[in-house]
Amino acid sequence: MQRFTLEFNTEGNTDIINVSAELAKRIADVPGSGLVHLFVVGSTAALTTLEYEQGLVRHDVKAAMQRLIPDDIPYDHEATWNDDNGHSHIRASLLGPDLTIPFANGRLLTGEYQQVVLIDFDTSPRRRTIIATIIE
Amino acid sequence: MQRFTLEFNTEGNTDIINVSAELAKRIADVPGSGLVHLFVVGSTAALTTLEYEQGLVRHDVKAAMQRLIPDDIPYDHEATWNDDNGHSHIRASLLGPDLTIPFANGRLLTGEYQQVVLIDFDTSPRRRTIIATIIE
Amino acid sequence: MQRFTLEFNTEGNTDIINVSAELAKRIADVPGSGLVHLFVVGSTAALTTLEYEQGLVRHDVKAAMQRLIPDDIPYDHEATWNDDNGHSHIRASLLGPDLTIPFANGRLLTGEYQQVVLIDFDTSPRRRTIIATIIE
Repeated sequence: MQRFTLEFNTEGNTDIINVSAELAKRIADVPGSGLVHLFVVGSTAALTTLEYEQGLVRHDVKAAMQRLIPDDIPYDHEATWNDDNGHSHIRASLLGPDLTIPFANGRLLTGEYQQVVLIDFDTSPRRRTIIATIIE
Repeated sequence: MQRFTLEFNTEGNTDIINVSAELAKRIADVPGSGLVHLFVVGSTAALTTLEYEQGLVRHDVKAAMQRLIPDDIPYDHEATWNDDNGHSHIRASLLGPDLTIPFANGRLLTGEYQQVVLIDFDTSPRRRTIIATIIE
Repeated sequence: MQRFTLEFNTEGNTDIINVSAELAKRIADVPGSGLVHLFVVGSTAALTTLEYEQGLVRHDVKAAMQRLIPDDIPYDHEATWNDDNGHSHIRASLLGPDLTIPFANGRLLTGEYQQVVLIDFDTSPRRRTIIATIIE
């Protein structure tokens, strides 16, 4: 088992970061077959896979999340803590903080149009840490 | 690989149980770095992470789930089986039954405000079993 | 660590395939306790667990997904690429491409009414590959 971290600056507000390239670099020298588990620290961000193309990334995912869990309705979380990110927490919990990807011979076994993405649902720019663990 | 189970009584109806403390106890004596995989048995409960504070736990998540997958619309599942938990199944499938958390030196590497939660979407109190597997 | 693939033909359009039987066959001869990680290749399909009964499979999940992420609203993805599967991508990202299931003594430790399902959200029939990895 090997562990490393990946760090990314995000803009928040459902900013979608393609982490495949950074991840691929760290896997490139790992021999044989295995899994890489990813976990984003914090309760307002999530990991999933997505075709990283600008229609989905710039508009469609944001619009879907706004329909599903709007940012402009009352949340008790916001009333209690006097903040503005109730929707961020629920969006993150819905998608989930972890993802495990198979690899072989130094290559992630994702589809050609399937990128690993970090989505930051919080309401301001953040620096995010992903804890990666390789299982061989 | 070590395996153990965690058991919790729930109230159902999107009851949200903080399982971090029980899980942390079982990890406390595990040396080195690893992953703990969690799986909730059954098709009407789910695992995710959430900031376990009362605004989100008592109101906001329940309200969001009710907007997303209402409990008061017709489901074929309910017509077929003469029961009332069609929404429970779909909510559980959407969030998913499994979660994997990294740990190191006896400590879960979750964020300070990021708790591991079991959400029971069924319509009456249940006793739930989480199967935990430690990968070192 | 052992790796194998499972292949399934789907009809697309939120077709729900029960993969438990095929998976159980491949686990049947594995001694001891472990985990099996599943990853569906591609950005328009997902894995989760579901009670595989016809009310949920034929109607309720499809109806829920149509309410959550409709197939008949505009998506920038579709405008850019002149296709029709913007909703498929977002549905797949929301549910996620991976799932890990515990097993012991050749048997999956899922609930009696909890099947492992592949959901194909794309808009036409596809052949899908699931990469399975056994961690012992």
